Amino acid sequence: MMHPSVERFEKWTRSPTFREELKKLLSKSYLHVRTPRSKAVLRVQAVALEAIREYLNSMGFVELLPPIIGPVTDPGIRGARQASIDFYGHSYKVMSSAILYKQMMATALGRIYIVSPNVRLEPEKTIYTGRHLVEFVQVDVEEAHATYHRAMDVAEGLFKHVVRRVLERAGEELKLLGRSLEVPRGRFERISYDEALGILEKLGCRVDYGTEIPWRCEVVLSAYFEEPFFIYDYPRGSRGFYDREDPERPGILRDFDMLYPEGFGEAISGAEREYEYEKVVERIKEGGEDPRIYGWYLEMLSDGIAPTAGFGIGVERLTRYLCGLEAVWEARPYPKLPGIVSP
Amino acid sequence: MMHPSVERFEKWTRSPTFREELKKLLSKSYLHVRTPRSKAVLRVQAVALEAIREYLNSMGFVELLPPIIGPVTDPGIRGARQASIDFYGHSYKVMSSAILYKQMMATALGRIYIVSPNVRLEPEKTIYTGRHLVEFVQVDVEEAHATYHRAMDVAEGLFKHVVRRVLERAGEELKLLGRSLEVPRGRFERISYDEALGILEKLGCRVDYGTEIPWRCEVVLSAYFEEPFFIYDYPRGSRGFYDREDPERPGILRDFDMLYPEGFGEAISGAEREYEYEKVVERIKEGGEDPRIYGWYLEMLSDGIAPTAGFGIGVERLTRYLCGLEAVWEARPYPKLPGIVSP
Repeated sequence: MMHPSVERFEKWTRSPTFREELKKLLSKSYLHVRTPRSKAVLRVQAVALEAIREYLNSMGFVELLPPIIGPVTDPGIRGARQASIDFYGHSYKVMSSAILYKQMMATALGRIYIVSPNVRLEPEKTIYTGRHLVEFVQVDVEEAHATYHRAMDVAEGLFKHVVRRVLERAGEELKLLGRSLEVPRGRFERISYDEALGILEKLGCRVDYGTEIPWRCEVVLSAYFEEPFFIYDYPRGSRGFYDREDPERPGILRDFDMLYPEGFGEAISGAEREYEYEKVVERIKEGGEDPRIYGWYLEMLSDGIAPTAGFGIGVERLTRYLCGLEAVWEARPYPKLPGIVSP
Repeated sequence: MMHPSVERFEKWTRSPTFREELKKLLSKSYLHVRTPRSKAVLRVQAVALEAIREYLNSMGFVELLPPIIGPVTDPGIRGARQASIDFYGHSYKVMSSAILYKQMMATALGRIYIVSPNVRLEPEKTIYTGRHLVEFVQVDVEEAHATYHRAMDVAEGLFKHVVRRVLERAGEELKLLGRSLEVPRGRFERISYDEALGILEKLGCRVDYGTEIPWRCEVVLSAYFEEPFFIYDYPRGSRGFYDREDPERPGILRDFDMLYPEGFGEAISGAEREYEYEKVVERIKEGGEDPRIYGWYLEMLSDGIAPTAGFGIGVERLTRYLCGLEAVWEARPYPKLPGIVSP
């Protein structure tokens, strides 16, 4: 069932003055953050962050400082552009994700995580999704010699721990926000991409096999479930070059997404990683890119790295779900939205 | 007394092949991070970060997600340039510090902190200091209605807690690194800027009154002390526009630095903040800038904010001190140094 906040937001986006109202709201962020509602959201977020670290630290994951700029970054950000800076005469990117460094660091330390700020210049129309920010933070988790099933287990355990702690430590805030939450009891459902397309067809959303599930269909699927769930085994071509192809099932990637219920949509994205030089070069070429731009990364792969698996969980989307917010920008005190100049 | 690592590094910088050796070392960061030494450093850093959060959370400081880009950022980064990106046709900055947002958020929440990545395009000659990174992380702490003496107390308590936890939880790593540390026993010495200049003169470093203490003199002063210490009351003109001028002592700022002993130099920078519109505009003009570029920030000040005080502690410099490293880039797995292209 769709959460009333998600419905309210969808209705708002259909108003002809939506963009102007949004712009006005964002220009006064410094007043907005002083409201009891906004303060409650930020407190829930801080508790969630603390719980994430508590869980990962207890499992031996080492927290690393995030990379912000570098000669190359994640190209797998469909539709969004990367931001560039001039670094002493060289064009550097602002990190769109820490993926390349995750493989590097899990090889060194075994289990790592990075609370990683990402910048993605999303198309302006994404302000209507309520789920996109130009600047957001994801907790990037990576583990050497792990399968994608193990990564799903970690993601599920992490999420349940966060809900438990938020209920324990931010009950007042949830009450103020009118949000009722429960720690999910059973194991999360895990359906394949093919099964997801089957359910979607029954729900009236036709998705062409081989493509990423459009965000509107994802919302429909998300509202159909009552607890978070996983979709795994996306087809090759629908994801970044670093999602590993199953050697025994060509065309199928050993990857997954976790979706929230109630129409809140995508929560987590994860995978086993391609780590062999030849395969990565082939996949980069397949994506229409020149492998030479990946200088240090390909050099590292040709020297050899460990196979790893991991995932990223968006902190603002998590906050939106935990607090039952209309849109993801309510989970950020200084939100940057496509095409809108604001603090 | 100068720590042997600091001396070793200074000697290395005098080698004619220093820059080339450094470049080569950094190009293979992905191998360097797999050494037992590097892994120990990163584990100490993770323990330090955990201890910082533990301390601040216990005092009611709320952790916020960092801002990475925005229409304007901290101009008080002497000698370094800001990095710019194209944000939908507008020139945005990559944050050189979160200072403007700290005032905004401490007004809303009272006590806040941000583990804040900063990008500063430092002059190329700063590779010789061993203390500068183009990309680094500082923990930015801010509190409403606090004095700078209170901010020094928080900084001192925080630092002692970190050392205690590192000794408890990373003893093996310190041993591997050959570093012996102790929790400082007494209250840290607090000397004024004037007193610092007096000591420096005796040590053979002449500093002109009214200027920032050059980093070479800071090293000398730092080596003269056996425990961390504070320098307070810098003169107006030597710091950013946001350090508050003492209303009863014109020309004197209510601000401070904390320095490490053993030649490791600057640890923390802090202050009470200017928060009154008129005064800030005057100080911005004094710094040779057009106040109009501070759009949202000045609008916020004219609407009114709380007086606040706080500080920033650089995580890589802290790690360097805790581990007794030669240079700050050993505290980062993917260090970005002025003018050197590396992972």
